[in-house]
Amino acid sequence: MRILVLHGPNLNLLGLREPEVYGSLGLDEIDLRLHELAAARGAELESAQSNHEGKLVDLVQASLGRFDGLVINPGGLTHSSVSLHDAVAAGPPAVVVHLSNIYAREPFRHLDLIAPACVGGVYGFGAAAYELGLAALLDHLEVRDS
Amino acid sequence: MRILVLHGPNLNLLGLREPEVYGSLGLDEIDLRLHELAAARGAELESAQSNHEGKLVDLVQASLGRFDGLVINPGGLTHSSVSLHDAVAAGPPAVVVHLSNIYAREPFRHLDLIAPACVGGVYGFGAAAYELGLAALLDHLEVRDS
Amino acid sequence: MRILVLHGPNLNLLGLREPEVYGSLGLDEIDLRLHELAAARGAELESAQSNHEGKLVDLVQASLGRFDGLVINPGGLTHSSVSLHDAVAAGPPAVVVHLSNIYAREPFRHLDLIAPACVGGVYGFGAAAYELGLAALLDHLEVRDS
Amino acid sequence: MRILVLHGPNLNLLGLREPEVYGSLGLDEIDLRLHELAAARGAELESAQSNHEGKLVDLVQASLGRFDGLVINPGGLTHSSVSLHDAVAAGPPAVVVHLSNIYAREPFRHLDLIAPACVGGVYGFGAAAYELGLAALLDHLEVRDS
Amino acid sequence: MRILVLHGPNLNLLGLREPEVYGSLGLDEIDLRLHELAAARGAELESAQSNHEGKLVDLVQASLGRFDGLVINPGGLTHSSVSLHDAVAAGPPAVVVHLSNIYAREPFRHLDLIAPACVGGVYGFGAAAYELGLAALLDHLEVRDS
Amino acid sequence: MRILVLHGPNLNLLGLREPEVYGSLGLDEIDLRLHELAAARGAELESAQSNHEGKLVDLVQASLGRFDGLVINPGGLTHSSVSLHDAVAAGPPAVVVHLSNIYAREPFRHLDLIAPACVGGVYGFGAAAYELGLAALLDHLEVRDS
Amino acid sequence: MRILVLHGPNLNLLGLREPEVYGSLGLDEIDLRLHELAAARGAELESAQSNHEGKLVDLVQASLGRFDGLVINPGGLTHSSVSLHDAVAAGPPAVVVHLSNIYAREPFRHLDLIAPACVGGVYGFGAAAYELGLAALLDHLEVRDS
Amino acid sequence: MRILVLHGPNLNLLGLREPEVYGSLGLDEIDLRLHELAAARGAELESAQSNHEGKLVDLVQASLGRFDGLVINPGGLTHSSVSLHDAVAAGPPAVVVHLSNIYAREPFRHLDLIAPACVGGVYGFGAAAYELGLAALLDHLEVRDS
Amino acid sequence: MRILVLHGPNLNLLGLREPEVYGSLGLDEIDLRLHELAAARGAELESAQSNHEGKLVDLVQASLGRFDGLVINPGGLTHSSVSLHDAVAAGPPAVVVHLSNIYAREPFRHLDLIAPACVGGVYGFGAAAYELGLAALLDHLEVRDS
Amino acid sequence: MRILVLHGPNLNLLGLREPEVYGSLGLDEIDLRLHELAAARGAELESAQSNHEGKLVDLVQASLGRFDGLVINPGGLTHSSVSLHDAVAAGPPAVVVHLSNIYAREPFRHLDLIAPACVGGVYGFGAAAYELGLAALLDHLEVRDS
Amino acid sequence: MRILVLHGPNLNLLGLREPEVYGSLGLDEIDLRLHELAAARGAELESAQSNHEGKLVDLVQASLGRFDGLVINPGGLTHSSVSLHDAVAAGPPAVVVHLSNIYAREPFRHLDLIAPACVGGVYGFGAAAYELGLAALLDHLEVRDS
Amino acid sequence: MRILVLHGPNLNLLGLREPEVYGSLGLDEIDLRLHELAAARGAELESAQSNHEGKLVDLVQASLGRFDGLVINPGGLTHSSVSLHDAVAAGPPAVVVHLSNIYAREPFRHLDLIAPACVGGVYGFGAAAYELGLAALLDHLEVRDS
Repeated sequence: MRILVLHGPNLNLLGLREPEVYGSLGLDEIDLRLHELAAARGAELESAQSNHEGKLVDLVQASLGRFDGLVINPGGLTHSSVSLHDAVAAGPPAVVVHLSNIYAREPFRHLDLIAPACVGGVYGFGAAAYELGLAALLDHLEVRDS
Repeated sequence: MRILVLHGPNLNLLGLREPEVYGSLGLDEIDLRLHELAAARGAELESAQSNHEGKLVDLVQASLGRFDGLVINPGGLTHSSVSLHDAVAAGPPAVVVHLSNIYAREPFRHLDLIAPACVGGVYGFGAAAYELGLAALLDHLEVRDS
Repeated sequence: MRILVLHGPNLNLLGLREPEVYGSLGLDEIDLRLHELAAARGAELESAQSNHEGKLVDLVQASLGRFDGLVINPGGLTHSSVSLHDAVAAGPPAVVVHLSNIYAREPFRHLDLIAPACVGGVYGFGAAAYELGLAALLDHLEVRDS
Repeated sequence: MRILVLHGPNLNLLGLREPEVYGSLGLDEIDLRLHELAAARGAELESAQSNHEGKLVDLVQASLGRFDGLVINPGGLTHSSVSLHDAVAAGPPAVVVHLSNIYAREPFRHLDLIAPACVGGVYGFGAAAYELGLAALLDHLEVRDS
Repeated sequence: MRILVLHGPNLNLLGLREPEVYGSLGLDEIDLRLHELAAARGAELESAQSNHEGKLVDLVQASLGRFDGLVINPGGLTHSSVSLHDAVAAGPPAVVVHLSNIYAREPFRHLDLIAPACVGGVYGFGAAAYELGLAALLDHLEVRDS
Repeated sequence: MRILVLHGPNLNLLGLREPEVYGSLGLDEIDLRLHELAAARGAELESAQSNHEGKLVDLVQASLGRFDGLVINPGGLTHSSVSLHDAVAAGPPAVVVHLSNIYAREPFRHLDLIAPACVGGVYGFGAAAYELGLAALLDHLEVRDS
Repeated sequence: MRILVLHGPNLNLLGLREPEVYGSLGLDEIDLRLHELAAARGAELESAQSNHEGKLVDLVQASLGRFDGLVINPGGLTHSSVSLHDAVAAGPPAVVVHLSNIYAREPFRHLDLIAPACVGGVYGFGAAAYELGLAALLDHLEVRDS
Repeated sequence: MRILVLHGPNLNLLGLREPEVYGSLGLDEIDLRLHELAAARGAELESAQSNHEGKLVDLVQASLGRFDGLVINPGGLTHSSVSLHDAVAAGPPAVVVHLSNIYAREPFRHLDLIAPACVGGVYGFGAAAYELGLAALLDHLEVRDS
Repeated sequence: MRILVLHGPNLNLLGLREPEVYGSLGLDEIDLRLHELAAARGAELESAQSNHEGKLVDLVQASLGRFDGLVINPGGLTHSSVSLHDAVAAGPPAVVVHLSNIYAREPFRHLDLIAPACVGGVYGFGAAAYELGLAALLDHLEVRDS
Repeated sequence: MRILVLHGPNLNLLGLREPEVYGSLGLDEIDLRLHELAAARGAELESAQSNHEGKLVDLVQASLGRFDGLVINPGGLTHSSVSLHDAVAAGPPAVVVHLSNIYAREPFRHLDLIAPACVGGVYGFGAAAYELGLAALLDHLEVRDS
Repeated sequence: MRILVLHGPNLNLLGLREPEVYGSLGLDEIDLRLHELAAARGAELESAQSNHEGKLVDLVQASLGRFDGLVINPGGLTHSSVSLHDAVAAGPPAVVVHLSNIYAREPFRHLDLIAPACVGGVYGFGAAAYELGLAALLDHLEVRDS
Repeated sequence: MRILVLHGPNLNLLGLREPEVYGSLGLDEIDLRLHELAAARGAELESAQSNHEGKLVDLVQASLGRFDGLVINPGGLTHSSVSLHDAVAAGPPAVVVHLSNIYAREPFRHLDLIAPACVGGVYGFGAAAYELGLAALLDHLEVRDS
């Protein structure tokens, strides 16, 4: 089982930007945890971050055939990118995650264009959202394959 | 650590109603899994289901002081109940869960009035949404208390 | 053929509340007529009224397997209850009825959340709306079964 | 008692167009049933179909004084014709009917501009909607005249 | 002169829930004050609280003939309950009250569905809103009866 | 100077339909007055009524080259006909008139799609709206030609 | 018969401001024409202009009992002044006029808050709108008094 | 304790304008009652009325330091004046009052721009709304100062 | 292969009406080109124009069985006719064309109710839109039949 | 070069009202700075403040011919005054300024009706917004005149 | 004559992604056909695909002076990219194409921000949309240059 | 003091694209002026342009710690990029500038998603908007640091 984790715009700032909203963990630490969690369940995991919508679309496309599932935190692209929606819809089974509870923030963060292309989603909980999303995805894939 | 799990309207039909949307697991089976999951982490868990908004508000209120956290699937009340929002906001830390991906369904299911009163949420994944929500809540409480 | 008739909030006031809008017939008289109409077509009929959304959801759920069809006047819940919509969608074939022409009244009465879960609906005509709705339901069930 | 039945645009295609939505009965068969139903209750009935909004307005106007009531299925004009609304409002007591459950279809079919000018309406049930609408109208007229 | 005071969902938490928004007075203390205020003006007063929409509708209905006026704080039902609107519209003259200034809070609290069914309303002022509402109601009834 | 006066759907009912809204004058009497008013100013006038949008479009088109100006009361087509808007925009200078004050009636009558294609408009005043509209048109044409 | 003519904000600039929109006639010339028109019909006329909403409200109020009718061009207040609407609604019969075709201009000019408080209105036609409005008002008053 | 009472546009017409909506009491009588009520509680009271938004803003500004509280009925400015909102927000504690139940009237009266700048509000009850608003304000100030 | 070309309201004015928007070619010239284009591909073609929605609906209906495909420019009916949508949806495969780029014009021209019932559409390019639409339709039919 | 600076409602409170939003500088100090800035560039400057929309309209009108440019902070009138928009559009070249970042505040402050009538605008930066606006205006006028 | 063809996000997946929506032809095959079509008409053609909005903007900009016209399928950027709109508006004459009928799909695909910057557009017809768009563009350029 | 100036999509076309909207100055000339203006105030300045949202986000992120302030003209990304908003909100103090008066252009340019993350903004004035924005930023930083 191979999983791709994608981090969208500004997530490279994790631990630096508004820690009261996004938590104090850096992206490397999150990736490390996710690798461990994947390894513990016998899965391989790769991760990447980009501030470029086009790069993320490229990566989602390239994952087809190479990965069995996708965990994606689209950052600010969550609310405007139909291109990313289309890529995810054409990619492997995906789970969308958000560090913060987007539904308790500004109204322009309440619309999630990526969610309809996913199996499901996890929001809030800070970095734990990634771990829960990864666990959910692995469960989903195992059930599907069983 | 004591956790209350609340199931809203129509969730007593689980396994009977539209299994292609909600999965084939019954509510008893879900509760059983949640009890085991809680026990494995040294927590106690109670659960209840009601089709009555008022009963759910009563239960959330009564949880204050008796429980450390709340996992709630508000069913159809998700989209209309300000009363339940207010009760959850005044209750212990809460996680909202939905069996289905509500953002991929009818437009009237896209508004979640309960989410802004919660720490975070999990949607999609069928019965696993409850397990992930419970795990997220326990993590959250442990971090808070550490 | 067994039919359940459900009357929602405030319909117990029929004959007392705004007779120029809702007519002068009481709920008992309506139920009597419906029993006679059902009997004349060889069907059995039970009816219930409740001001409680949860109670109505309970009753719709309990009708599954015990009744062949449902006639429901959701009263004020028509315009806000996703829970009742979900229960009806999971219940036996249903017909929604309204005593008054809801489309000729205040704008907040123009949205009918229950209708999309039904075979069809009848509005206006006062108490006759129930009788027409019952007739429509019996016809529908007979055709389906023939 | 004399009743006019009007069928709007595309209803001449009944039995041919999307039978899974509109049923397999042709318009002639529906008219025949309505004549029999009217006759059984001692009423006379005429019917007409037109794809022309203006023609339907002409017919509604001409019915004043010549007919005691109107059953109308406005077809696609349901959603856009203020002229037909005005004609019906100035005509004899009217009942609006729709073969399909318009509230369970595309959003642009949810607005019914004719309904506010009518005594009431019936939707869904296929061809039976006409029969129920006619029965409702006759009942209404008999009560009014008694 | 007999007055019924109804407290909606979550108002039993008064003094406990967000005291900076709702004040530190408990519901019992408020009821006590209202009884004294009523007694001072020669009126009788009963009060009840419920988290159940249906129960509140029941109580409003039962007040007809037994009470001369109604003071109601609908809590979260303010913003969604057409059923409660209909019950109040069919009940004795009513005054709607809110502890907080609902128009200075979240947008979803700005719509008051109960207000159009009342003589008038009072919002803000904490517990004093009830006392002012009661005084307004007694004045209104005395003027009407004089 | 040659003027065409067009009356839209349902205006043939003038004097019969809701006289408290539209006045008690019949369409013939209005046309007579307009002929006299035109004659008194040395202009010729023709008028026509139709309940058919297409017929009205035909008449507006045919007026080009044969008439110097147009007075039009579009009736219910005011609110929905882009085709009539386009025809009027391509026709001779036009004035739109309404017997009633459409801005003091139902919301669906507040949008006037024909007005943007006209020199100006007159509403309210009953039949006098036509006379004022005709006078305004003649003044406009005389000024333009002087 | 005594008539008051009120000109709202910026109308003192007539003949100076955007003559291609508002015409080249000055306000004095318009007033002169209106006086002559009134005199020719045996009526007296006074006029006033103000850029102050409050002054216009004062003048409308003061007209009650001193004038039989009101012609008002509210200028930019057309689109925002509920106070002027209320004053006009409480004043003598009124006609609203606009020099330009407000429905063919920017969207924020399409809402006329004063119109619902008037007998009717005239728009477009430049200065002639006043004359037509005055004629309409005198006709209306004569009919009412006959 | 010194209180300023401000009456907005058209309130000088009280007792004259639509008594079925606003009551038959004149503004002088209301002011007299308010003076008596204030005196009975040991407070001083001044009042003023203006149809001018700017004058009302002037008066609110001038009250700062000279008055301890403000009772304001903004009349038609309720629905459009951000300037008055800003003045009230910068002035002494304020209570907004409306003679009529604005939430049971035309939709354009449902938005209250002044309310968010106030402690609370009272609507409906006719002239009594002022008295209740004054009492609420005095209570509020006494509590704050105690 | 037999193709029907339908031209909606005001298209008979082509070459006369606003040539800077619609081009200088007359409808006859367009039809001539389309006949030649069809002939060159071995197809037969008939065309018709009407300003009447009902006539266009008649023609679309009549095309069923007699024509293999439909090219339609609905003119102003594009934006309001559900009846034409329904007829096209029940007719042979259709292509919708517009002479002008409707998405670069007034907002009320941006909604195309006919498009969802078609295989595809072509807009802008003046008369060439028809030719492209016809070519697209012939290609589509040939592919389908191959 | 002569410049008029206009300050709208509540700006006379500068330095007193919410200094954390509007800064601690008084209006006199701002005016002084602007005079110095103008003098340094060889321009004359006058300024005025009013809480009255009508007065501001008067001043803008009177500036025509007497001033070469206008700097205006419309205060609360920014969001509602079409009259001020019209006056500014008919006046000398204008720049609109706001002390605070109106786009980062309440939604009702996001609409700027004056901006479309101006050359440009400056917002945020506190009192410096005036200075930047004045500099921008002088630059604009010099370029235009060069 | 030199033409640039641009393919937006996810179009490199053609033939792989949802063939029932987008067809089974790969992008290379489409490009080949377009080259042949261009060559047959004596034009040169280049094409490029990118998932990056910025890259597409770069390419459109670089086309100015090097290409005579542009055929663009913006993919998901159709619905959100003002930057691409601005680039196309500043580039050579352009035609927008979509493989699928975007007006018959999800509501978020109905808004086309690129279309207003183009000569015209073609949608539906699968890969043929490109060929029709190219033909339309060549025709347009030839007419313009003749 | 070190300042970063960022130019968004299509601004590299300055002087070429629609000079009547954006002015005739090229981007190099603007950058030159800004360097001189910064140097004159003892500040250093770097600038960059990109058509790529992701590149702009990268640059804003990289500015943290290396620059004291940011001047940004987001071009078409102004209206859609939540990612850029988030980057700016996490970056050094920023000023947003627009060459044209975006509030006097198409409605889709009226929403500025970047503004809420900035200290303030300047729009209109062509290239001078950058200079004013830079001056405003330097003033802001100096005041903050003093």
